[in-house]
Amino acid sequence: MSFRFEVLHRDAGTGARIGRMHTGHGTVETPVFMPVGTQATVKAVGQDDLQALGAEILLGNTYHLMLRPGEALVQRLGGLHRFMAWPRAIITDSGGYQVYSLAQSRRITEEGATFQSHLDGSQHVLTPERAVAIQEALGADILMALDECPPSRSERAYLEESLARTTRWLRRCARAWKGGSGALFGIAQGGLDLGLRRRHLEEVCAIDLPGYALGGYSVGERPEEMQASVAEVAPLMPEDRPRYLMGVGTPVDLMQAVAAGIDMFDCVLPTRCARNGLLFTHQGRLNLRNAVHARDESPPDARCDCYTCRTHSRAYLRHLFAADELLALRLATLHNLHHYLSLMRGAREAIAEDRFAAFVADVREREGGRAPPLGDEPGADPPPARGRAGGQPGRTGTRGKRRE
Amino acid sequence: MSFRFEVLHRDAGTGARIGRMHTGHGTVETPVFMPVGTQATVKAVGQDDLQALGAEILLGNTYHLMLRPGEALVQRLGGLHRFMAWPRAIITDSGGYQVYSLAQSRRITEEGATFQSHLDGSQHVLTPERAVAIQEALGADILMALDECPPSRSERAYLEESLARTTRWLRRCARAWKGGSGALFGIAQGGLDLGLRRRHLEEVCAIDLPGYALGGYSVGERPEEMQASVAEVAPLMPEDRPRYLMGVGTPVDLMQAVAAGIDMFDCVLPTRCARNGLLFTHQGRLNLRNAVHARDESPPDARCDCYTCRTHSRAYLRHLFAADELLALRLATLHNLHHYLSLMRGAREAIAEDRFAAFVADVREREGGRAPPLGDEPGADPPPARGRAGGQPGRTGTRGKRRE
Repeated sequence: MSFRFEVLHRDAGTGARIGRMHTGHGTVETPVFMPVGTQATVKAVGQDDLQALGAEILLGNTYHLMLRPGEALVQRLGGLHRFMAWPRAIITDSGGYQVYSLAQSRRITEEGATFQSHLDGSQHVLTPERAVAIQEALGADILMALDECPPSRSERAYLEESLARTTRWLRRCARAWKGGSGALFGIAQGGLDLGLRRRHLEEVCAIDLPGYALGGYSVGERPEEMQASVAEVAPLMPEDRPRYLMGVGTPVDLMQAVAAGIDMFDCVLPTRCARNGLLFTHQGRLNLRNAVHARDESPPDARCDCYTCRTHSRAYLRHLFAADELLALRLATLHNLHHYLSLMRGAREAIAEDRFAAFVADVREREGGRAPPLGDEPGADPPPARGRAGGQPGRTGTRGKRRE
Repeated sequence: MSFRFEVLHRDAGTGARIGRMHTGHGTVETPVFMPVGTQATVKAVGQDDLQALGAEILLGNTYHLMLRPGEALVQRLGGLHRFMAWPRAIITDSGGYQVYSLAQSRRITEEGATFQSHLDGSQHVLTPERAVAIQEALGADILMALDECPPSRSERAYLEESLARTTRWLRRCARAWKGGSGALFGIAQGGLDLGLRRRHLEEVCAIDLPGYALGGYSVGERPEEMQASVAEVAPLMPEDRPRYLMGVGTPVDLMQAVAAGIDMFDCVLPTRCARNGLLFTHQGRLNLRNAVHARDESPPDARCDCYTCRTHSRAYLRHLFAADELLALRLATLHNLHHYLSLMRGAREAIAEDRFAAFVADVREREGGRAPPLGDEPGADPPPARGRAGGQPGRTGTRGKRRE
């Protein structure tokens, strides 16, 4: 395992820190946002675009890739990096969340998860050992342990049983992995119950691993609830390991979590919103489908220096969305990913200069101030839920919908 | 009008020539293939991609742009070049072909064409004067005169009437234009009837204009019929003006027409085929959806140096098409446009070196030799018709289907 993490500096006023992950495919500066490339591609943009944007790590999905094209094929073709021609780092999710959100007829036993493919109904078994084997076949730099993501309205008895099983699965993942090619991260669940969260986190972190993650957030709770819980839980994670908050979130969610000490994020929000015409800007959210932009020569975000904002007007982008042109999707995705990646660059600079609290306040002001929240923009398609990557393809939920 | 055309060299063995069009937005080396950007965008690629590909001129469609976003809006925003951020040359089709292929309830009178929008059923009138005014409002470097594209199965009496009307419309276009901002080209019709073709071409070329085009080909006839007719007709067009064959065609169609003395082409074939997974390669046509490519690490075309072929394998592209990923469309379109633009570069070099006949023979061999003709590839979507740009959006026909 060629993985190493170092904390470079801790912000004087918050729990935020900057760090560096050394992987077999380059270094990753943290805090980092990892664009979601579920099916070995980040939707609507190319690997050339992602390199130009400065992305240092992408997320792929075990669930999707095991079903199509299959990990054996990817391995035979030299692994996921070579298959998709992405020379930088790759993290893969374990499939646990997609079994919960996508698969049909799923059944959870001590052995693992049995489910039917959402593509063709074929039967599959995902055990902790197999989840590790698939991710190693893919050649991921960071592997996620198989977890169960219990429905948040579960009875407490079921939740406790599920958490204990996820811990046992983690031990099996760790044994199967044995310090293999990539770095295995454990996932702590527990929903919004702080007692359960703390206890499960303690169990998970008792197993010595290169990194740890918080799962089961951003599945329908209010953002304030999630932010408050993460603020309590993140500081309990080992200081010297990367801390990963899975499937989160809005720019404000990210900044609040960074202030609590989180280092890594992935979310479909910037890419999925983009395909619906919703841009994140320094002036708040912008719905490109709105008629108000029809004659507007200004760039989507005057303070942005992405290709889209340097090149095109709101009027042109609005026309592309109105005419259902494919270029709209790429241009909007380029902008939103640039916005997220720039946000993280700005956060790293602010932490380095011990002014992160002020930075968060600025982000809060600019992101939340002027525009209506996600989902309430007139004329918009149903907005995506926040949430962990690789949920239901072709469907978008609303914030508060449990499955993505 | 800042338009000028010069013939630089004539091939010793064929009617082919190389030339240069000087426009208000740069020079265009001929023979040239002009990618189709119907709605102010070439489907699936960006203006950055098109510049990197070396495209010197794009085609836009009067019919589509007058309906959405409307020429007044484009003019107000500084013209089509600025609206779509394309600094090089633009040619616009007059709308005559789309009135024939797309519009509902069309009625042709001496005054012009009355039709209902295919978008919302709204009523519009396109007169010769209005076609010129719209194209001037868009700021096109080359404008096409309004023509009627008569159904090829029309009675001879109707055909004669239509051709005479198109000539009268051309005179009205020329009067409305008066050597304005862009260069007005006339369009000769006449189907496959050589007598009518010759007579109409003579009428059209009697009006002194910066360039001339042949319309009404590639609307369902066999390619050999079209090629034979163009070989007869092209040499009759003025030597010192650019000669434009509208809506054609396959690589072999293009080379045959260049050998007859044609300088300009546009066609949706490379871009539309790409979106269906069909690539033009030096080894013939390649259907990326075929399962045979699933484990194939080789590039789509080993002799191609486009971004797609330099970066990605057939296996990866096949996966992207199988998974319905947007990136598939951009990568395939980049390749096919590169193939067409390279073909034209190769043709210009061959003409400069007086070896164009051998070049055409090579293209015939490599393009037609190994692969089944368009439309017969197993597993392919229905292939697009050849034919003039901006036909029915979202529908593909077969070669031989009259309307695209």
